[in-house]
Amino acid sequence: MGGVIGLDVGGANTKAVWRNGGERRAVSRPFEVWRDREALAAVLREVVAGVAPEPVEAVALTTTAELSDAFRTKREGVGFVLDAAEAALGGPPLFAFTTAGEVVPFAEVRARAPEVAAANWLASALAVAAVHPDALMIDVGSTTADVVPIAAGRVAATGRTDLDRLLAGELVYTGALRTNLAAIAPRVPVRDSSCPVASELFAISADVQLILGHLAPGAYTCATPDGRPATVEFARERVARLVCADAEQMAAEEIDAIAAFLHAEQVRQVEAAVRRVSGRFEVAPPVVPLGAGAFLAREAAEQLGRAVAELPW
Amino acid sequence: MGGVIGLDVGGANTKAVWRNGGERRAVSRPFEVWRDREALAAVLREVVAGVAPEPVEAVALTTTAELSDAFRTKREGVGFVLDAAEAALGGPPLFAFTTAGEVVPFAEVRARAPEVAAANWLASALAVAAVHPDALMIDVGSTTADVVPIAAGRVAATGRTDLDRLLAGELVYTGALRTNLAAIAPRVPVRDSSCPVASELFAISADVQLILGHLAPGAYTCATPDGRPATVEFARERVARLVCADAEQMAAEEIDAIAAFLHAEQVRQVEAAVRRVSGRFEVAPPVVPLGAGAFLAREAAEQLGRAVAELPW
Repeated sequence: MGGVIGLDVGGANTKAVWRNGGERRAVSRPFEVWRDREALAAVLREVVAGVAPEPVEAVALTTTAELSDAFRTKREGVGFVLDAAEAALGGPPLFAFTTAGEVVPFAEVRARAPEVAAANWLASALAVAAVHPDALMIDVGSTTADVVPIAAGRVAATGRTDLDRLLAGELVYTGALRTNLAAIAPRVPVRDSSCPVASELFAISADVQLILGHLAPGAYTCATPDGRPATVEFARERVARLVCADAEQMAAEEIDAIAAFLHAEQVRQVEAAVRRVSGRFEVAPPVVPLGAGAFLAREAAEQLGRAVAELPW
Repeated sequence: MGGVIGLDVGGANTKAVWRNGGERRAVSRPFEVWRDREALAAVLREVVAGVAPEPVEAVALTTTAELSDAFRTKREGVGFVLDAAEAALGGPPLFAFTTAGEVVPFAEVRARAPEVAAANWLASALAVAAVHPDALMIDVGSTTADVVPIAAGRVAATGRTDLDRLLAGELVYTGALRTNLAAIAPRVPVRDSSCPVASELFAISADVQLILGHLAPGAYTCATPDGRPATVEFARERVARLVCADAEQMAAEEIDAIAAFLHAEQVRQVEAAVRRVSGRFEVAPPVVPLGAGAFLAREAAEQLGRAVAELPW
């Protein structure tokens, strides 16, 4: 069947896109690499078979899995991911994408492992730049948002590594699914007061977005913190625990007010990054929203009065 | 051998104290009830046998395990803990401590389960009040700090439930061991700038306190987030991940500066609670520091110029 595959090995999700001319197919599978790193090769094999059951011309890989604590350093993590991909996908030529925007054969890239770490945002931004030469890409995933300026068809980001991107406001650690609510805001509104939160992992952003109707139950694709179902009722129980309460102590409306506050705080964090990144440019090009949390990007754009441009696929 | 046992069933640690006149013995065992709640009875049996191998006159129990997400409500959690204690400790009369300060036989207390939830701070405060009739007890545990005023020999707290205590500043969700660093501060200093943190569970307060020498490796009694050893070297790798970096990208001094900042922030949070709780009283009685994180309480007292009174045991 030919065509090429783009493979993104995240810490919590592994995704593949197959493309051949105008044809396109995508698969995403939750897989938390820190829970069982030895299973990575099998997961890669499955994901790639799912998107392209017949031989392809080439596979190009990005990875962020190396940041997970399955690995002591990014060098070790990138090496492990390259090994797993080689073991799983022997056949077509394999390439890795670097934070310099190069596509490098595996054989050459091993010595340059740190340059391969977390280049996925750049791959996405280059794809956006091919369609919208002037844009602000906002890709909100399960835990992070990439806020990447594109000017005159080029990716105009300041940072290349995750650390530099955090410092530049181009990487925002807030996402639509797995973000610990205790890390979104130190206090939430309760009974006309502001209540400090419990710093446990009792509830995540998917609970908030499910309660508010921004995510359908089927879009809650990660594990729930308590192992109970991804329904509004159980999500409310999890959110109540954020202030050491339960569903007997708090009314549904009180819990939903906490959810609404935390959702607004996530939008505000994306807005702050948009303002900061946009401040470097004279014009304000349209926002291109992407990812499972694209709705958060659209809301931030609306709050800021920015135009929104959707991708054609 | 007689005597009585005080048993505290926490979400992450189970503790027992045996006392007979002037004799006293204590045992603490890490046990995370949400990982395997069915093992609770066996753990209680072991802890009690460890502190008092022969029959005692009575056992009085407090519990905070009901807040863990092993249970849908506190009512369910308290019932489960009472059942486990009954199954494990059949023999001496069993009592539960309530947030009203009563000691109630198990048979009577089952219908009043919510009153039994999280009464441990009150049991501790009453013990302190017997020694220091005017004091501010600051008990810093693995994840939380109790800031409880004692006046004229009585516990003068405003809140009784955890939610009301959070709102009153009498319960502060910061601790010496298990607090997720991403929940301590939204930003940390990196290279003359302020860097947003990754909202994962990459590192905990025990890593910070170990790096700074406030905790010995043997006092790191909880699991490390990455399953690697509780040494300064590995703790630094965990803390580097908080800003998406690794030990190749950041020097030890840079990582230690992040640790120092987060430690100071924990002290500041305890200080803020002390100021708030003390504001209700005309006099400023001595601070009585308790718990695995007593050093944080002593530092907060010093910063505020408050006298410190140690307990005689």
